Amino acid sequence: MEKDIVLSKIKGGLTDDFVAPGMHLLIDFWGCANMQDEQGIGQALRRAAADAGATVLDVHLHSFGEQSGVTGVATLAESHISIHTWPEIDYVALDVFVCGSCNAYKALDALVEYFKPARQQLTAHERGVPNATEARATA
Amino acid sequence: MEKDIVLSKIKGGLTDDFVAPGMHLLIDFWGCANMQDEQGIGQALRRAAADAGATVLDVHLHSFGEQSGVTGVATLAESHISIHTWPEIDYVALDVFVCGSCNAYKALDALVEYFKPARQQLTAHERGVPNATEARATA
Repeated sequence: MEKDIVLSKIKGGLTDDFVAPGMHLLIDFWGCANMQDEQGIGQALRRAAADAGATVLDVHLHSFGEQSGVTGVATLAESHISIHTWPEIDYVALDVFVCGSCNAYKALDALVEYFKPARQQLTAHERGVPNATEARATA
Repeated sequence: MEKDIVLSKIKGGLTDDFVAPGMHLLIDFWGCANMQDEQGIGQALRRAAADAGATVLDVHLHSFGEQSGVTGVATLAESHISIHTWPEIDYVALDVFVCGSCNAYKALDALVEYFKPARQQLTAHERGVPNATEARATA
């Protein structure tokens, strides 16, 4: 499972039992499905947020037209999940930023299952911690 | 000027005349002003977006109450600017993600002028480029 490889690599780059004020994952997907389905993307963001243990305040998405992508964000009580799709270059940019007791990594399953990327890259950033650890993994 | 130090360090970590499909800045501010002023924050985000050369689609902000912070996002035609303030720990998390001909760095002046951080940290990430360069600067 590519996802599992990514997760284990990312976690290996940070400390065990990692706790930070906020964890921010930058997620790049290439070779994706479902990049233009505004309703489906909204549902995937809501599921990702729920899986992370977050509370959705609202979801706003914009479609740029039939041959173009979708951009938007799920605003969370615990920060946000953003989405920008570029079907023109077969690329999806996501970021998952959650604080408190949420787990950003748990948002990944829903996003991978929805977009089915052929290739993915993650960088993980502690937020609110000066000179915090960062980690990257590719699969 | 702290801002200038940050900018020059960040730019020094990337290549000259840097162009990427998307540039994503993660911005941490400590020791800030104006962390609870929803209207002022909205204006700062709009100015930051304009300075970066971006088009604002909408701005959605949520206040968590009198002693608490503000969370939200400016959705852009060219991606987004997010904002999460924690007055409790004197901390503001921003991210500026812009694509096309926009310049993410040009959003910084408006954000620094509005929040007046005593300390700041930036990490810069190319998005949509496998194994892209990253850079960090602190001031």
